[in-house]
Amino acid sequence: MKIAVVGYGNLGKAIAKRQAELPGFELVGIFSRRKVKSEFARVFAMGELDKFKGKLDALLLAGGSSGDLPIFSPKLAESFNIVDSFDTHAGIKEHYERVDAAAKSGKTSAIISCGWDPGLFSVIRFFGKSFLSPVETASFWGRGVSQGHSEAIKRIDGVLHAIEYTVPKELYVNKALSGERVNSKNAHLRECYVVAESEREHEIEEKIKNIPEYFQGYETRVHFIDEKEFLKRHNKAFHGGRVISFGKTSKEEKATALMDFKLEINSNPEFTAGIMLAYSRAVKHFSDLNIFGAKTPLQVPPSFLGGDIFNIL
Amino acid sequence: MKIAVVGYGNLGKAIAKRQAELPGFELVGIFSRRKVKSEFARVFAMGELDKFKGKLDALLLAGGSSGDLPIFSPKLAESFNIVDSFDTHAGIKEHYERVDAAAKSGKTSAIISCGWDPGLFSVIRFFGKSFLSPVETASFWGRGVSQGHSEAIKRIDGVLHAIEYTVPKELYVNKALSGERVNSKNAHLRECYVVAESEREHEIEEKIKNIPEYFQGYETRVHFIDEKEFLKRHNKAFHGGRVISFGKTSKEEKATALMDFKLEINSNPEFTAGIMLAYSRAVKHFSDLNIFGAKTPLQVPPSFLGGDIFNIL
Repeated sequence: MKIAVVGYGNLGKAIAKRQAELPGFELVGIFSRRKVKSEFARVFAMGELDKFKGKLDALLLAGGSSGDLPIFSPKLAESFNIVDSFDTHAGIKEHYERVDAAAKSGKTSAIISCGWDPGLFSVIRFFGKSFLSPVETASFWGRGVSQGHSEAIKRIDGVLHAIEYTVPKELYVNKALSGERVNSKNAHLRECYVVAESEREHEIEEKIKNIPEYFQGYETRVHFIDEKEFLKRHNKAFHGGRVISFGKTSKEEKATALMDFKLEINSNPEFTAGIMLAYSRAVKHFSDLNIFGAKTPLQVPPSFLGGDIFNIL
Repeated sequence: MKIAVVGYGNLGKAIAKRQAELPGFELVGIFSRRKVKSEFARVFAMGELDKFKGKLDALLLAGGSSGDLPIFSPKLAESFNIVDSFDTHAGIKEHYERVDAAAKSGKTSAIISCGWDPGLFSVIRFFGKSFLSPVETASFWGRGVSQGHSEAIKRIDGVLHAIEYTVPKELYVNKALSGERVNSKNAHLRECYVVAESEREHEIEEKIKNIPEYFQGYETRVHFIDEKEFLKRHNKAFHGGRVISFGKTSKEEKATALMDFKLEINSNPEFTAGIMLAYSRAVKHFSDLNIFGAKTPLQVPPSFLGGDIFNIL
């Protein structure tokens, strides 16, 4: 299938690299606002995307959720089947509605929020809610590097480099395993390492702590370090997380069940790239069936991701 | 939605009890070949099912996979939307094809193999195969009571009571966690406690060990005990399992990812009942959309199981 990538940061690069390793993909182009080079496909300016209308099975959008995707996803869904990894949980419904309207008017198919959370973890949570009742479901992220949170810091004026480590607190993991309700804002620490113009550090720290959705309401620690230390010690992109659902299978006292899903990944952009490529097969499938509009991973039959189902059942 | 249950063993009883605890279900009848009583709905003979054609949203089939479902599922799919929990992995494709043909000719919808394995575990395995490549996926069951295996023993002539505990071997769990390929037949012990006519024990043990799919090729231990001990010590139906997928996110050496899903349930029939009830909402959804034929859980969008997706994403 013919695909193209919009955006050539960590995620865009991971998609371009990964599609070359997997069967069935042809990367027709990389579209970027910046002048970038790639060994995987020709790079075009964003303005040239119009020429590819009707020539792509899926466009994979590798932009950020706060600045890029709210603009690009609805706009590009008018002309292309798109897959994005929009990850601001509180904004998904609004994003969905805008992309859905655009895709329906353009007779295209779109799948938003294709990553591991939202995405894979959403499905795991949904199974917990569907099979157990009452149920308490808790999600933990980390310890690991959140690209979304790191990018949100980097957008602050005066910031040169930034990385955020999300760290789950063990006390709250244990609460979740025994069925206690856990508020995810209390259950995590956000640890940030930032290289910034030194006279603006205090102002930048305040700005970080007040970024809505990403940092507001979380225990956030900001460490300012020098560029040399940053490049040496903070160049990994490992991540992971855990979804714990503890609930009842009937009203009887001992009728409990635990669903405990753990993820450990050494490269967050690579794993997200793998998920987006799998959902690009699904978006082509929807489009081939003339099922237009937007979907989230919860609305996609797993079989649409490709492969023989009877080997796996 | 109006449902009915066919079969009133452990699973049928769990469905009848659970639907009364959940909102949105009306149990119109219980259909059984035996004379049984229920506090949850009127009990009918199998022959009376014909009268309910057009009056049910879903028929939940609670029979065994070796004897009942291969006959009942295709037959009843001609007239009703059905959900079953057919769990003989090697026979799913054939079962699917027969149910699919029946449902298409009857313009009904069917979802087969709705349990935790096949079912929930199948989806988890499929995500591992879809997102990682190359990948090794291993499934472990237990330590816990397998209803299917216990029933298979009970069908042997001369057996009064039987229970099978499936026990995963830790060595193989650790292999799977580090990405080694694991053959599930080597990775489990099948421990059976049987009450039988004493002069036939040797013959029965041989028969158990040679039941295809269920016991053949597995390390199987058969313990003959007396009825009193059986009823005292072997009256629980706990179970659980684990799906471990270890794979690559790119060709780079360190680009590994681990997906590790663990399930612990105190009542296996109750958890399966909860899954079947969730998929009965999905089968009504397919039927309402005039999407006829058979599906497996891999072909069902999670959102069809009910509930608000935007709260979960």
